[in-house]
Amino acid sequence: MNTPLHNELKKEFQLERLILFSDAVFAIAITLLVIEIKIPDVHQNVSNQLLLHELKHLIPKFMGFLVSFMLIGLYWTIHHRMFGFVTNYSRRLILLNLMFLFFIALMPFSTGFYSEYAGADLYTKQLTVPLSFYVLNFFGAGIMIFFIWQHISNPKNKIAEPAIDRLVVKMAKARSLIVPLLFLSMLPVAYFTNVIFAVYIPLLIPVIMRIATRIIKKNHKA
Amino acid sequence: MNTPLHNELKKEFQLERLILFSDAVFAIAITLLVIEIKIPDVHQNVSNQLLLHELKHLIPKFMGFLVSFMLIGLYWTIHHRMFGFVTNYSRRLILLNLMFLFFIALMPFSTGFYSEYAGADLYTKQLTVPLSFYVLNFFGAGIMIFFIWQHISNPKNKIAEPAIDRLVVKMAKARSLIVPLLFLSMLPVAYFTNVIFAVYIPLLIPVIMRIATRIIKKNHKA
Amino acid sequence: MNTPLHNELKKEFQLERLILFSDAVFAIAITLLVIEIKIPDVHQNVSNQLLLHELKHLIPKFMGFLVSFMLIGLYWTIHHRMFGFVTNYSRRLILLNLMFLFFIALMPFSTGFYSEYAGADLYTKQLTVPLSFYVLNFFGAGIMIFFIWQHISNPKNKIAEPAIDRLVVKMAKARSLIVPLLFLSMLPVAYFTNVIFAVYIPLLIPVIMRIATRIIKKNHKA
Amino acid sequence: MNTPLHNELKKEFQLERLILFSDAVFAIAITLLVIEIKIPDVHQNVSNQLLLHELKHLIPKFMGFLVSFMLIGLYWTIHHRMFGFVTNYSRRLILLNLMFLFFIALMPFSTGFYSEYAGADLYTKQLTVPLSFYVLNFFGAGIMIFFIWQHISNPKNKIAEPAIDRLVVKMAKARSLIVPLLFLSMLPVAYFTNVIFAVYIPLLIPVIMRIATRIIKKNHKA
Repeated sequence: MNTPLHNELKKEFQLERLILFSDAVFAIAITLLVIEIKIPDVHQNVSNQLLLHELKHLIPKFMGFLVSFMLIGLYWTIHHRMFGFVTNYSRRLILLNLMFLFFIALMPFSTGFYSEYAGADLYTKQLTVPLSFYVLNFFGAGIMIFFIWQHISNPKNKIAEPAIDRLVVKMAKARSLIVPLLFLSMLPVAYFTNVIFAVYIPLLIPVIMRIATRIIKKNHKA
Repeated sequence: MNTPLHNELKKEFQLERLILFSDAVFAIAITLLVIEIKIPDVHQNVSNQLLLHELKHLIPKFMGFLVSFMLIGLYWTIHHRMFGFVTNYSRRLILLNLMFLFFIALMPFSTGFYSEYAGADLYTKQLTVPLSFYVLNFFGAGIMIFFIWQHISNPKNKIAEPAIDRLVVKMAKARSLIVPLLFLSMLPVAYFTNVIFAVYIPLLIPVIMRIATRIIKKNHKA
Repeated sequence: MNTPLHNELKKEFQLERLILFSDAVFAIAITLLVIEIKIPDVHQNVSNQLLLHELKHLIPKFMGFLVSFMLIGLYWTIHHRMFGFVTNYSRRLILLNLMFLFFIALMPFSTGFYSEYAGADLYTKQLTVPLSFYVLNFFGAGIMIFFIWQHISNPKNKIAEPAIDRLVVKMAKARSLIVPLLFLSMLPVAYFTNVIFAVYIPLLIPVIMRIATRIIKKNHKA
Repeated sequence: MNTPLHNELKKEFQLERLILFSDAVFAIAITLLVIEIKIPDVHQNVSNQLLLHELKHLIPKFMGFLVSFMLIGLYWTIHHRMFGFVTNYSRRLILLNLMFLFFIALMPFSTGFYSEYAGADLYTKQLTVPLSFYVLNFFGAGIMIFFIWQHISNPKNKIAEPAIDRLVVKMAKARSLIVPLLFLSMLPVAYFTNVIFAVYIPLLIPVIMRIATRIIKKNHKA
C-alpha cells in the first residue's frame, strides 16, 4: 500500500474508532429490539384481566426479544474478545467488519418478523419462512465472525501483533463456527421434521459453547 | 483460565469498551423513552384549546418520561460510580452487565406501557398489571446492580485493584438494595391498599438515598 | 465528601465517560429528529406531481428538522467547548448535566409537535401552544448550560483546573444566556404581536452570536 | 482567535470527542435504516406462501437498505480515513462536520422514501421525484466530504500536522469528488434517458473507486 492510511501517531485511536463504531451499532440494534413490541392499546373497558390477556399475546415477542438480546450480547462478547488481540487494521478488516455489522443491524427486523409469527401459528401452520429468515440473519453474522478471525489471525496481515497463539486461534475459529452451524442446522430440522424442534436449538448454544470451551481447555493443557 | 482474554496491553481499552458499550445502551434507552409520546394529531378545526386539551391527555406520558428519565439517569450514575473502581474484567462481569443492560433496554417499553394507563383509569380501575410490569423491570435492573457490586467487590475476582475499602463496599451494597426494594414495596402497597399510594413511592428514592448517604457518612466517620 | 467517587487513577476516564454518554444522547436526539418526518404513502395513481405535492406538505417538517438539527448542533458545540476546560467532576455536575440532557432528549418530540402545526395553520390560527412548547424546551436546555457554566467556573468546585480565565468565564456565561433569552423572547412576540414574527427569531441566533463574539474579542483586547 | 477553545491538555480528547460524536450519528443512521422496513402483518390465513409473497414486495426495501448501508459504510470509511490525519480542530471544522452529519442523519428518510417507490412503479411511471431526493441527499454528504478535505489539507489551518503529503491530498480530493459526481450524474440519466439506467449507477461506485485507486498508485509511483 503506497498511500498511508493515517498519521502514524493516530493508529491506535483509528483502531479504537473502528471498534467503538461497531459497539454503537451493537448497542442500537440491541436496544431497538424492544421497539417491535407494541404497547397494548385497549382503552375501552380496560381492566387487569384484559391487559394480562394482551400481555399473554405478547409472550412470543418477549421471548424473541430475550433470545435475540442474548444472542446479540453473545456476538458482542465474541467481537469484544476477538478485537482484544487486534493491534492494527486494514481496509479489508473495515470491510469485513461492515459486512458483519450489516447482519447485526438487520436483527431488529428479523427478530420482529420471526417473533410476530412465533405464536401458535408457527406450529400449526409450520411457518418456515420467518424462521428461515431469522436463521439466515444470525448465520450471516456468525459466519462473518469466522472470516474476521481468519483475517486477524493470519500473521501476514499484521493485524494482531504479537501473533496470537496458534492453538488459541485454531480453537477460536472452531468455536466461531459453532454458532452459525447450529443456526444453519435449524433449517433441515424445521423442513424435514417439525418447526417446533428447530425453535429450541438456539437454547443449546450456551451448553455447546460450554462443552467446547472445556474441550479447548483440555486440548490446551495436553 | 488458560486461554488469554486479550493482548495484555489492550486490557485497559477492553474494559473501557465494556463500559462505553453500556453507556450507549443507556443513552439509547433514555432517549427512546420520548418515542412513546405520540404527537397529537388534530388537523381538523385545530385550535390552541384543542391542542392544550390533547397535551393534558399526555400528562401521564410526560410524567412517565420524566420519572423514567431520572431513574435511568440514577442507574447510570450508580453504574458510573461502581465502574469507577473497576480495573479489570471477567467473563462473569460481562454476563452480569449484559443482564443488567437487558433490563435497561426494556425500560422504554415498560415506561410506555405503564404511562399509557397511568391516567384516571389507573386509579378508578386499579390497574395493577402495568404498574407491576414497570416495578418488576426497575427491580430487575436494581438487583443486577447489587450482584455486580458483589462480583466487583470480592477481592478474589481481582476486578477492582486496589481492593475497595470494605466499609465503602458494605455501604454501596446496602445502598444498591434501597432502589430495588423500594420498587418491590410498590407491589404489596398497590395490591393490598390502593394503587394510588404505590405510584408515589419512586418519588421517595432521592429522599431515602440522601438519608442513606448521610448515615453512611456518619458511620464512616465513627 | 468522605466516600471516594472512584479509583483516583480512573478519574480521567470517569470524566470522559460522562462526556461521551452526553454525546451519545446528543447523537440519538439529533438523528431521531428525522423519524418524525413520515414517508409519503400514496400508492394509488402515484405520479411525480403527486409526490411533489406530498413533499411540499412536508416542508414545515423539513424546516423543523433543519432548524432543530442546527440548534442541537449548536448546543453540542457549546457543550463541547464548555467541557474543554473541565478536568474533574462532581455529583452536582452529573446531576446538572442529566437535567440538561433531559431537555435534549425531549427535542425530537417538541420539534415534531411544533413542525406538525408549523404549516399555514400556525399563522391563520395563531397556534401559540406548539410554539410555546418548542420555545420552553429549547429555553430549558439553554438555561441549564448557564447553570453548568456557573458550576464549572466556580474555582471552589475544583471542576476546571487551572481555573478558567475570569474574562473568558464572564463572556461565556453572558453568551450562554443569549440563546435561552432569544428563545424566551419568542413568547411575548408571539402572544402580543403575531406568531409569524416569533417563528423567525431563532434565525437571529447565528447573527447575534457572531456579534457577541466580536464584542467579546474587543473587550478581551481592551 | 483570542479566546482559548479548551484547556490545552484536553485538545486531543476534544478532537476525539468530535470524531466519536460523528460515529454515533453514523451508527444511528445506519441502524435506523432498517426501521423503515415494516414487518409484514398478515395474521388471517397466514401461510408460508403468503409470507413469501409479502417478503417479495419488500425486496425494493431490502435493496434500498443494503445499498444505503454500504454507502453510509463507505462514507464512514472515508471519514475514518480523512480524520486519520487530523491532529487539531477549528470552529469551522466543527461546522463543516455538522453539515456533513446533517446529510447522514437524513439518509434513513431519503432511503425509505426512495425504496418505498422503487418497485415496478419506479419504471412504469418514471418516478424521478424520490430518486432525485435520494440522489441529492447522497450528493450533499459527498460534497461536504470534499469541503472537509479542503479545510483539513490547507496547511494554514493547522488541522493536520505534519502537513499531509501534497500528492495524497490531491488524490484524496479527486477521489472524494467521484462519489458525489456519480450521484449527480444519475439526474440527467434519469430525466433524459430512463430512470432504470440511473438506478444502477451507485453499483459502479466500488468499480470506479478501485480504478481511481489504481490510477492514484501509478501516479504516486511515477
